[in-house]
Amino acid sequence: MKILITGFDPFGGESINPSYEAIKRIKLDNSDIELVTVEIPTVFDKCIDTLDRKIKETEPDIVICTGQAGGRFPITVERVGINIIDARIADNEGNQYIDAPIKSDGESAYFSNLPIKAIVKSLINNKIPAEVSNTAGTFVCNNILYGLLYLINTKYPHIKGGFIHVPFLLEQVTDKRNTPSMSLETITEAMKIIVETAAVTETDISEQGGAIC
Amino acid sequence: MKILITGFDPFGGESINPSYEAIKRIKLDNSDIELVTVEIPTVFDKCIDTLDRKIKETEPDIVICTGQAGGRFPITVERVGINIIDARIADNEGNQYIDAPIKSDGESAYFSNLPIKAIVKSLINNKIPAEVSNTAGTFVCNNILYGLLYLINTKYPHIKGGFIHVPFLLEQVTDKRNTPSMSLETITEAMKIIVETAAVTETDISEQGGAIC
Amino acid sequence: MKILITGFDPFGGESINPSYEAIKRIKLDNSDIELVTVEIPTVFDKCIDTLDRKIKETEPDIVICTGQAGGRFPITVERVGINIIDARIADNEGNQYIDAPIKSDGESAYFSNLPIKAIVKSLINNKIPAEVSNTAGTFVCNNILYGLLYLINTKYPHIKGGFIHVPFLLEQVTDKRNTPSMSLETITEAMKIIVETAAVTETDISEQGGAIC
Amino acid sequence: MKILITGFDPFGGESINPSYEAIKRIKLDNSDIELVTVEIPTVFDKCIDTLDRKIKETEPDIVICTGQAGGRFPITVERVGINIIDARIADNEGNQYIDAPIKSDGESAYFSNLPIKAIVKSLINNKIPAEVSNTAGTFVCNNILYGLLYLINTKYPHIKGGFIHVPFLLEQVTDKRNTPSMSLETITEAMKIIVETAAVTETDISEQGGAIC
Repeated sequence: MKILITGFDPFGGESINPSYEAIKRIKLDNSDIELVTVEIPTVFDKCIDTLDRKIKETEPDIVICTGQAGGRFPITVERVGINIIDARIADNEGNQYIDAPIKSDGESAYFSNLPIKAIVKSLINNKIPAEVSNTAGTFVCNNILYGLLYLINTKYPHIKGGFIHVPFLLEQVTDKRNTPSMSLETITEAMKIIVETAAVTETDISEQGGAIC
Repeated sequence: MKILITGFDPFGGESINPSYEAIKRIKLDNSDIELVTVEIPTVFDKCIDTLDRKIKETEPDIVICTGQAGGRFPITVERVGINIIDARIADNEGNQYIDAPIKSDGESAYFSNLPIKAIVKSLINNKIPAEVSNTAGTFVCNNILYGLLYLINTKYPHIKGGFIHVPFLLEQVTDKRNTPSMSLETITEAMKIIVETAAVTETDISEQGGAIC
Repeated sequence: MKILITGFDPFGGESINPSYEAIKRIKLDNSDIELVTVEIPTVFDKCIDTLDRKIKETEPDIVICTGQAGGRFPITVERVGINIIDARIADNEGNQYIDAPIKSDGESAYFSNLPIKAIVKSLINNKIPAEVSNTAGTFVCNNILYGLLYLINTKYPHIKGGFIHVPFLLEQVTDKRNTPSMSLETITEAMKIIVETAAVTETDISEQGGAIC
Repeated sequence: MKILITGFDPFGGESINPSYEAIKRIKLDNSDIELVTVEIPTVFDKCIDTLDRKIKETEPDIVICTGQAGGRFPITVERVGINIIDARIADNEGNQYIDAPIKSDGESAYFSNLPIKAIVKSLINNKIPAEVSNTAGTFVCNNILYGLLYLINTKYPHIKGGFIHVPFLLEQVTDKRNTPSMSLETITEAMKIIVETAAVTETDISEQGGAIC
């Protein structure tokens, strides 16, 4: 069982990105899993190209992309990527598209085929706040999620994949008021649980994880 | 120019739904618009059937559905409906589907073809907090939004349509801590601006209105 | 029955202060009340001097000071002023004291002698979100509250007085994310209710209005 | 150097109180400090009596009381205790006083004489979110803070003392939406830093730590 996990480099004025900090510290209990860890640039298009190259190179069974969700409280497991870019800020190479499709020949959205409910349940069972999310935004995180699911749906139908959003680190909020955060230890532990849950879950569980709005 | 606007009945323990309260009070300045106002039941499937019947009956140019987004701060103009129901609570007839598609032959998502950016801009120009939203949740609001866009894409290609989420009313939060709200007067004024902006906007403006996550 | 009500001028980068905007629009139903409305500078010391002068000049029975509480959701009726200045930003004349007492011969705190519970109840009965607050901060709002109560305790024992914090106006948050606001109409209506409740309440009601923390 | 530190037992429907969980796990680096750890009942009056007895028995140089602040984001170092009880819920023995003084012969408020600014700075230097708070509420936390400062001001003038509020633990918010939390490891580390900073700081630093409101 090979799992490719990606994190982004810092963006939006932050000097650190909790997603990559966490994934590079993962220590698995399950020795049947070979984990490949990659840092991806916070750049439209290029992030998908990097991911595609890495998939070709490593031939994983599962791909888990991760990113920073500043302002969210729990670990959020994304349900769906949508075919749009609408960038409130520029990416790390200055691109700022407005209402552009990610893939002109792609569907309007793809649903993650990770066991998102089983992952949320495992995290909560391990006392880590977690929820399903129904939007990965319209910036680079949604971009890589949609891009990954497009690749799965068009080129790699045997791969399971999805996206995890993590809160700011403690140190990122010491100068921000009323902003949620999570320790690097907790996020790293969450990542380990996510990887191991994805590895062993054949079929997702059926439990409500919806949002009123 | 005929516009059909819908609001929901109360749900989730509330005794009032700000969406219908507001739309039934709209007073338009633009006399070229004929406005048809309907209350829709907060019930899966049935809400879409009611909407379809109303569309057949009234033959509108534009359909705007509206609903309550308890916990949101601004008026939010929804960008996309997704093909899933995942109900955290039961609807008003006791249905609580988990991870079920809304339409088995529908696309995974449809984008609103209302001028969502022009609407947000008009609201802000009139000093009313407003944002584009990238998720209408997975309950009945997303259900009617997806259902409307499915109808537009399969049966009524000439219609423009979308969904507006409104915050709790002031009176709904007097017993809730740290919960945002908006006065009925402000929501009603917002609805008027939305209807009149939708009526006169041929092509949406291109302005960023995205979300990082 | 004469009531002196004060609001502050804009501060902290805002171009408007909801407190003064609201109080100058109050229209009372109760014709037995003579209402005197004053704008006070957002400046330490000077605001208290201005208030003292106005009290001497108008000889009110009740003094209600009001100010902007950006970030709060409901109307908040302050319970207590504390004898300290700790300014996170400079006041409107550039003063920024740190951990300085307001009055070197004053008590460590004074409790408002307005009927704060009756005021909260009247507001909620009129469908306006309201709470007792146990801190007016350590900037100019606490400064005028403490200063008023110091004056009442040392010079004007027959006067009843206190402080009301109001949220941002709608227009102040159109460019701020996840920030609560209230319409000018609602804040103005709240101010009218507060003035009329203060005027007719001899003894405050006994109802819980506390905070866990 | 002897330091007495207290935490509360669980209250308000929670099965755990992060304050006591954290303090009983503190491991100090500074071997000059003798740390005495006590669990205090979440009960008005009785908590102060327990504290007084413990102070007599252990003769500490510094007393740090701690408690749970559900809903707060950072570690908060309280500046002031006020002479009032206004209980929104009953304490653990069913007492629910409204607008009652804590000590009929006490001052209206007492300021903490812990080095609150130095403590906040140490925490932030160690990447732990922290702020000064200007209200400990009107429930049992403010009760013990005010009670401690009353004891210091009337019986133990050589003691330094104050109060620390800590957020919910991760596990306390897995079933609460949009509620901040902090890991037990982080809170425990924070407590160690607070104890060691209090022990070595003769005079507090002068740095702004105020609140606008």
